[in-house]
Amino acid sequence: MKRLKLGMVGGGQGAFIGAVHRIAARLDAKWTLTAGALSSDPKRAAASAADLGIAADRAYSSYSDMAKAEAARPDGIDAVAIVTPNHMHAGPVIAFLNAGIHVICDKPLTTTQKDADAIKAATQTSKAKFFLTHNYTGYPLMRQAREMIARGDLGRLRVVQAEYAQDWLTEDIQNKQADWRTDPKRSGAGAIGDIGTHVYNLLTFVSGLKTDALSAELHSFVDGRQVDDNAHILLRFKGGARGMIWASQVAVGCENNLTLRIYGDKGSIEWDHVNPNQMRFTKFGTPTQILTRGGAGLGVGADRWTRLPPGHPEGYLEGFANLYSDAAKAIIGSHHDDLLPGIDAAMDGMWFISACQKSSAQDTAWVFK
Amino acid sequence: MKRLKLGMVGGGQGAFIGAVHRIAARLDAKWTLTAGALSSDPKRAAASAADLGIAADRAYSSYSDMAKAEAARPDGIDAVAIVTPNHMHAGPVIAFLNAGIHVICDKPLTTTQKDADAIKAATQTSKAKFFLTHNYTGYPLMRQAREMIARGDLGRLRVVQAEYAQDWLTEDIQNKQADWRTDPKRSGAGAIGDIGTHVYNLLTFVSGLKTDALSAELHSFVDGRQVDDNAHILLRFKGGARGMIWASQVAVGCENNLTLRIYGDKGSIEWDHVNPNQMRFTKFGTPTQILTRGGAGLGVGADRWTRLPPGHPEGYLEGFANLYSDAAKAIIGSHHDDLLPGIDAAMDGMWFISACQKSSAQDTAWVFK
Amino acid sequence: MKRLKLGMVGGGQGAFIGAVHRIAARLDAKWTLTAGALSSDPKRAAASAADLGIAADRAYSSYSDMAKAEAARPDGIDAVAIVTPNHMHAGPVIAFLNAGIHVICDKPLTTTQKDADAIKAATQTSKAKFFLTHNYTGYPLMRQAREMIARGDLGRLRVVQAEYAQDWLTEDIQNKQADWRTDPKRSGAGAIGDIGTHVYNLLTFVSGLKTDALSAELHSFVDGRQVDDNAHILLRFKGGARGMIWASQVAVGCENNLTLRIYGDKGSIEWDHVNPNQMRFTKFGTPTQILTRGGAGLGVGADRWTRLPPGHPEGYLEGFANLYSDAAKAIIGSHHDDLLPGIDAAMDGMWFISACQKSSAQDTAWVFK
Amino acid sequence: MKRLKLGMVGGGQGAFIGAVHRIAARLDAKWTLTAGALSSDPKRAAASAADLGIAADRAYSSYSDMAKAEAARPDGIDAVAIVTPNHMHAGPVIAFLNAGIHVICDKPLTTTQKDADAIKAATQTSKAKFFLTHNYTGYPLMRQAREMIARGDLGRLRVVQAEYAQDWLTEDIQNKQADWRTDPKRSGAGAIGDIGTHVYNLLTFVSGLKTDALSAELHSFVDGRQVDDNAHILLRFKGGARGMIWASQVAVGCENNLTLRIYGDKGSIEWDHVNPNQMRFTKFGTPTQILTRGGAGLGVGADRWTRLPPGHPEGYLEGFANLYSDAAKAIIGSHHDDLLPGIDAAMDGMWFISACQKSSAQDTAWVFK
Repeated sequence: MKRLKLGMVGGGQGAFIGAVHRIAARLDAKWTLTAGALSSDPKRAAASAADLGIAADRAYSSYSDMAKAEAARPDGIDAVAIVTPNHMHAGPVIAFLNAGIHVICDKPLTTTQKDADAIKAATQTSKAKFFLTHNYTGYPLMRQAREMIARGDLGRLRVVQAEYAQDWLTEDIQNKQADWRTDPKRSGAGAIGDIGTHVYNLLTFVSGLKTDALSAELHSFVDGRQVDDNAHILLRFKGGARGMIWASQVAVGCENNLTLRIYGDKGSIEWDHVNPNQMRFTKFGTPTQILTRGGAGLGVGADRWTRLPPGHPEGYLEGFANLYSDAAKAIIGSHHDDLLPGIDAAMDGMWFISACQKSSAQDTAWVFK
Repeated sequence: MKRLKLGMVGGGQGAFIGAVHRIAARLDAKWTLTAGALSSDPKRAAASAADLGIAADRAYSSYSDMAKAEAARPDGIDAVAIVTPNHMHAGPVIAFLNAGIHVICDKPLTTTQKDADAIKAATQTSKAKFFLTHNYTGYPLMRQAREMIARGDLGRLRVVQAEYAQDWLTEDIQNKQADWRTDPKRSGAGAIGDIGTHVYNLLTFVSGLKTDALSAELHSFVDGRQVDDNAHILLRFKGGARGMIWASQVAVGCENNLTLRIYGDKGSIEWDHVNPNQMRFTKFGTPTQILTRGGAGLGVGADRWTRLPPGHPEGYLEGFANLYSDAAKAIIGSHHDDLLPGIDAAMDGMWFISACQKSSAQDTAWVFK
Repeated sequence: MKRLKLGMVGGGQGAFIGAVHRIAARLDAKWTLTAGALSSDPKRAAASAADLGIAADRAYSSYSDMAKAEAARPDGIDAVAIVTPNHMHAGPVIAFLNAGIHVICDKPLTTTQKDADAIKAATQTSKAKFFLTHNYTGYPLMRQAREMIARGDLGRLRVVQAEYAQDWLTEDIQNKQADWRTDPKRSGAGAIGDIGTHVYNLLTFVSGLKTDALSAELHSFVDGRQVDDNAHILLRFKGGARGMIWASQVAVGCENNLTLRIYGDKGSIEWDHVNPNQMRFTKFGTPTQILTRGGAGLGVGADRWTRLPPGHPEGYLEGFANLYSDAAKAIIGSHHDDLLPGIDAAMDGMWFISACQKSSAQDTAWVFK
Repeated sequence: MKRLKLGMVGGGQGAFIGAVHRIAARLDAKWTLTAGALSSDPKRAAASAADLGIAADRAYSSYSDMAKAEAARPDGIDAVAIVTPNHMHAGPVIAFLNAGIHVICDKPLTTTQKDADAIKAATQTSKAKFFLTHNYTGYPLMRQAREMIARGDLGRLRVVQAEYAQDWLTEDIQNKQADWRTDPKRSGAGAIGDIGTHVYNLLTFVSGLKTDALSAELHSFVDGRQVDDNAHILLRFKGGARGMIWASQVAVGCENNLTLRIYGDKGSIEWDHVNPNQMRFTKFGTPTQILTRGGAGLGVGADRWTRLPPGHPEGYLEGFANLYSDAAKAIIGSHHDDLLPGIDAAMDGMWFISACQKSSAQDTAWVFK
């Protein structure tokens, strides 16, 4: 297929997630980075664009100028990646949607319900597509697990145990990454927003379960920190399944430990992001099997989203790239976008954050959906 | 040291935990099984005793007869192991305590608060010692972890994640082991009693934390089952630490998965019963270390409770045997019994069960201690 | 069954392997330690016996006196465990065999071919049984693997990779354990005798393969050490399979790492002694399965040699105990002893040691059997 | 930095390794694929080029035409990737070197010593650089290990255990990948060429050891197969260290299992490609540490070749990309190319293949270097 043209808002020099989006877009040669409003500071915007090989006339310092100009060009961008801090998502997302340009937005959707509602409204009136990069859903084995659960391999689901544990906020550090994430105005939430939404999204994506209610105990262990750095969450799902989430950024020794375990009455899966190329699968009463990305016995599932033979590890960037490549295919119409997180997943994530905060403020009272 | 004489109540032919107690007592050659009321059925009691090499005149079919007779003999037993089903602990425990014979009782203490209070009263008036076999505390690395935490290696504790997951009650089975465990009259509780008390005891033993309150969601996933088979529990500890317990007997693929993870502001430990000879230890900001039973870098700690050089796996029976051997030493006075779970741990376990049931009945309301 | 009476030669105070034999004998309550020549020093022999609860009149300081006296007693021992250093096996083994008393001998058989031949001759003229404690064959999953291979689950065998790596002789240490093991007169060989014979025995036991020839590169990495501390060995088996053994006592970070991997044209097994309760099994073209001791899908195999439900770890002592318990059953005639290593395995081990030394002395020339 | 222009010879539609090279070149945005002789069939060459976005006038069907034309253009390619089957490396490598164009060649160098010598001669007369893609050297932790060994963290090296095991040639399959690899004319060798050279290169790269001699046992387990599918190799290194390589393509259950373990007199490292983001490191007498890519305690080493924070898995493509990105930096002169395998590593690999074949033909005689 012909490469699509990608724009980017945010992600200037020194940004982490912007660089990840760019590699993910590049990996499968389905996108060319063509335009950008990489910084609101004009000098930094221009310098960042030059670094990235963006032509000077496609380097903007205002996302609204960019949306207008790109929409007007015959060779305008096909889609834009929004990689600003959370509290600055709504403006550009709505501007590009209104300009008819597809949007690929980093998660979580935004920091306020008002902004979220405005984005949702924009998706409903725009012909453009909207994608949210819950990238962990891009791992082939997570899509494999979703398929196995949907076809009944695990039977009726009973229990979901999900965790996302890091330790980089164990102490009171100051740096570009930490600063906005621990500022409630810019992040909207702490661990539950930054990583909790990921694991909540992943468990709903893989299990197919619908949340009924949650009860959350949020805590901040570092003196003076204004957002949660540890969260314990109980979940009740429609149909009777139960679940538990632990999200922490103060779990010493955990670099980026995302795990998902799902138990049904006939089988279970267990997956650990430390080695995303393997997943345990047990049919009740038989030995546990080690399913591998691309390996024996997986059926057609995971093979569709993999570049390498089994035993050649793919990782975080490849999983992220699956979202970009699928988005490209969805945009040109060669592929359904049913696996890609969109506005519904985004709104569910917003509910998750606010419900956690509400429950915790009310001494872990159950908050219904 | 000279071998002590052990009696046993319960544990006749076909019993599981009685056989485990006998091996544990035998392993270090500190005990000789000398007397028993192995069954309330006289024929079965006699046959079981003969199988085990107990002299006919020391084979009883009534524990109260046994307590009286053994107390009266100049060569009477030094201690008795109580391995009857939970609802039948109180009678023999009290009888032997009143007879001045040391008691080693299987967990949990009993099934009613009334029985528990009566046992506690008996321990207070008896000169005999009382031990409860929370055997997982006997693993050398769990004692090592306790020592490390007590001396501050992990700093101030923040988060405890504890799990005990099995799958043997995934379906509605009927057998000797399952029948009494799923009968509320005989067991008093389901997963929270059978395995939940173990993991709760272990986390308090290792962490040294004092519980402030808990919130529990108990559930029974198998139709018609009258006790809980899955429990999600939030914990608040005095001093501000938070914790989570998951106990399940319907977790397909989990044979007997007990894990304990404890995070402080300076370090963490992670232990998984699947291989109890290893424990992960991380000081914040340095690489994770693999501590091994008897291995390099452990200090004097774990070496005291180990029979083999590092790399020669010890397991469940050896951990259990540490309780029996320490109990023998405590009885002859050569050793303090501060590591052995006693009446306080037993009463704490009773509180845990009742608090879980009360909280769950009140829609996960917090129950304070 | 009634307990058998066990004698012991060697294993006095401070000995390692003697204590292991005693626990193994005790674990399943099939043996009572009744007599001993625990040391050639009369005082130490008597003190050691008293420690172990052996009656004074059954405590000997000469194995030949013991053999005679015990054979003459109506309540004489049923079998004797020989746990002296390697170069002192032959004397007591032959004495007890000639006295008609069953022998359980520690490995390797002895240090010279002459001694080995003499022992073999004694086994042929004695009615008593002879067992060699290659204890790793006692692990339930190793017996399971043997059964699977024998019935063709792996197809025709092709490749065997076997390792036994330790690090305790990394430096030039002096202690009771190290001293005789690194003295060629007392040990007869270094790593190949102490651990190489174990792994060679285990691979032949499990695979059922017959050795055709071997090529060995022995090396001693510590200055002044007179025996090998590292061995690389190539194996050719009858029928065309190939194999490799690495045995080392200078492999830093390896506590006692015995691994066995066997590949056939239809399947493979991989086992690692670090967690002996699990084994990987792969049928070609299907996902790898994790077989567990006592777990799902094992058929009757491993269940026969296990005391605990799956998920309750058994270890080194339990595997060792399986040899003692099977020997007891073989002696009373309730059980075939076909799984127990006997004189043939012992002589094969002697060939292994001498072939390695011969090959290495001839620049790794192939030595045929 | 400005992107360099890359050409490619081989790698047309359906090729595996060509696609890998292209992703590796693209990942860090240091290369643009600009020209290609992707197939010797003109139609297929043109179609493949069009698929990849190569302009029609830069799509060649002859590598010699391509070398001439690109050398003549002012905007000619900076370097060319040679991804043809092994027996077709020499022609294009020499043509481009002679044309002054840098060469990035897939491994092994070629299939005959004559071709290898000719390539070496061409590197000596050309000003262009030559790189061989032993991509496993690109893993950050392998470079970290090299640095640690070079600075003495492991002390004096003693033993190297290296393995590369696959199972995809367990049976006699026919497909594009298998056909040329099992044809001695096109591949030059079997497992020792395809994967043996990788693991041999990796162990010399990481250890810094110089080979003194090797002894090899090659075998072909599949009826009718004309090249080796299993190799057992003993190694002697200058200075006295010893090593062992096992390379197999018939090891059922092994997808792509490359492991490297290196033991010195002060420490050891163990690395397993199944999870390339972790490496075990043990200082003698202290607990084993888990070093992670980008994680705590690594010093500056591995951080230079990593895109993501610790805990975000990087894999095969990222390691491969490190070679391409370092090559780009070496070409523009911003970076030394001392970590990049070049003609010396390539010739060493040729020696390895021929020495293995010679040794095996002479019943594992030692072949000196």
